Amino acid sequence: MRHSKSIRLRVMRDDVIAFGPGKAALLLAISQHGSISAAARALAMSYRRAWLLVEEMNASFREPLVATATGGANGGGAHITALAQAMLMRYAHMSAKAEAAIAPDMAYFESLMVITGEADPD
Amino acid sequence: MRHSKSIRLRVMRDDVIAFGPGKAALLLAISQHGSISAAARALAMSYRRAWLLVEEMNASFREPLVATATGGANGGGAHITALAQAMLMRYAHMSAKAEAAIAPDMAYFESLMVITGEADPD
Repeated sequence: MRHSKSIRLRVMRDDVIAFGPGKAALLLAISQHGSISAAARALAMSYRRAWLLVEEMNASFREPLVATATGGANGGGAHITALAQAMLMRYAHMSAKAEAAIAPDMAYFESLMVITGEADPD
Repeated sequence: MRHSKSIRLRVMRDDVIAFGPGKAALLLAISQHGSISAAARALAMSYRRAWLLVEEMNASFREPLVATATGGANGGGAHITALAQAMLMRYAHMSAKAEAAIAPDMAYFESLMVITGEADPD
């Protein structure tokens, strides 16, 4: 549990996070739920925010990561592209490699930590 | 430049970031400027925020990372402890190892990115 958020990898494009933990989670949710709005609901994120993140991703890479189907307003659904699927796998692989690389150092930091459940000093 | 913020390593203690990029920067600024208030100014951070981060660090580890000298109100200055110095070095080392581990994957992502200066698609 303690390790779950120890590493956050971001692919930056100037000041924009082109790809990172939030965008990876959104892609996964779109692939599971079939639309941007359903994905946003699943992540407790506003539709506006989810749409913005999709726009940032699609503008950052040479091919789109999310494709929206035509249909009525908000009615067409969305899916992630083959490129997005490849990126998700690569991102998970990269995160696992980084976690492995830092494991001994994390153990050092944790050995110095107050154990949860001990009284904190005021 | 693009790489400068690609990795953010956090040592978590439950939901609190016990040590991470912001706290490392604050420790460095305290060591350079000799007080929490001067460090906060140098980082364009409120004194209240800097003080909170110091409290979180000192409460998370078995020994304090920042020691404040006695003196008038806010008058005594602060310094980082030997443990904090050791942690800063270890954190930099850990970050460098993680960067090296992910370099090939980052190159993959960057190869797919729109080059800065190209027109963004609307």
